[in-house]
Amino acid sequence: MTERRPTERADAARNRRAILDATAALLAEHGAAGVTMDRVAAAAGVGKGTIFHRFGSRAGLLYELVAEGAVALMTEVSSGRPPLGPGAPATDRLLAFFDAMTSLVTDDVELIAAYQAMPPHPRSAEFHAFWAQHIGTLLREVRPDIDADTVGALLLSAVGGELAQQMARAGEVDRLRSAVAELVRSVLRTP
Amino acid sequence: MTERRPTERADAARNRRAILDATAALLAEHGAAGVTMDRVAAAAGVGKGTIFHRFGSRAGLLYELVAEGAVALMTEVSSGRPPLGPGAPATDRLLAFFDAMTSLVTDDVELIAAYQAMPPHPRSAEFHAFWAQHIGTLLREVRPDIDADTVGALLLSAVGGELAQQMARAGEVDRLRSAVAELVRSVLRTP
Repeated sequence: MTERRPTERADAARNRRAILDATAALLAEHGAAGVTMDRVAAAAGVGKGTIFHRFGSRAGLLYELVAEGAVALMTEVSSGRPPLGPGAPATDRLLAFFDAMTSLVTDDVELIAAYQAMPPHPRSAEFHAFWAQHIGTLLREVRPDIDADTVGALLLSAVGGELAQQMARAGEVDRLRSAVAELVRSVLRTP
Repeated sequence: MTERRPTERADAARNRRAILDATAALLAEHGAAGVTMDRVAAAAGVGKGTIFHRFGSRAGLLYELVAEGAVALMTEVSSGRPPLGPGAPATDRLLAFFDAMTSLVTDDVELIAAYQAMPPHPRSAEFHAFWAQHIGTLLREVRPDIDADTVGALLLSAVGGELAQQMARAGEVDRLRSAVAELVRSVLRTP
């Protein structure tokens, strides 16, 4: 029994990865409508029961995929290299953060669109609280004269809205990225 | 027949107003879930058939209500008094516009939330094109050095997102209004 365990865990991890990768591939190729539990099961080479067992529902599956990207960004922000991570001036960290957030919402635009169309996942508030705290803390440092929490939330709202998805679908991510940087620089009052 | 026409028109206009007012009242009191065709008909004192005849569907009814506010703002922008209307400096007009837009999305927050939860109305693109053109034209005047269309679209996206609804529901419209003004002033590089 003790001998089988590592193998079972390795199998589970492999299945989890295969399911998430299959979901991402179906999303990229067919959009949200293309992601059915049947298709994911077939593409990942697992039973549908395995997916329900591990992710609970289609919504749970999409959440896991979004959470992977969000957790990776949280880790970079908390303990990664500057300027995204600690050690750089607040101005540089904020610009790096909004650039990374632009990537997060445009790299897998079909995933983000599908995720935002669902009722909010109970745990998504955790991510939001983390971004809010990070932006607010840094922005207060650079602009102690403004309501940094609300202005920071507006910046995040600008980047996280439908506009980003529309521009990503139109192949205009670079243009979006420049405009986001300009908007953030304006708020930071840096050239 | 010619004699009856004006009366019919007056009746139709009265019914239309009664239906829209009843919808607005139900929305404000019960939220989107409280707006059913049966309730609107009862509150407006008209038959359900009359509502379907005039508005096509529940979505059509909500659209008409949103369109009323949007058309009013378009009129003020096009031919109203400065600073919202023509005649004021671009900086003042932009600040006035984003303040008015903040009112538009927070005055009837349940309506806007219900409207945004529906598939986009075919005609809503007209409003969006109008706002985009207005913001882009004025912003280009003040900041010819930036991609005014995209930065302007980001500003509109910030104001039109879920954050505004959350803050309106939390009774924080004044705080939102100040932060929107700060954000716009930052982009305009004015103190």
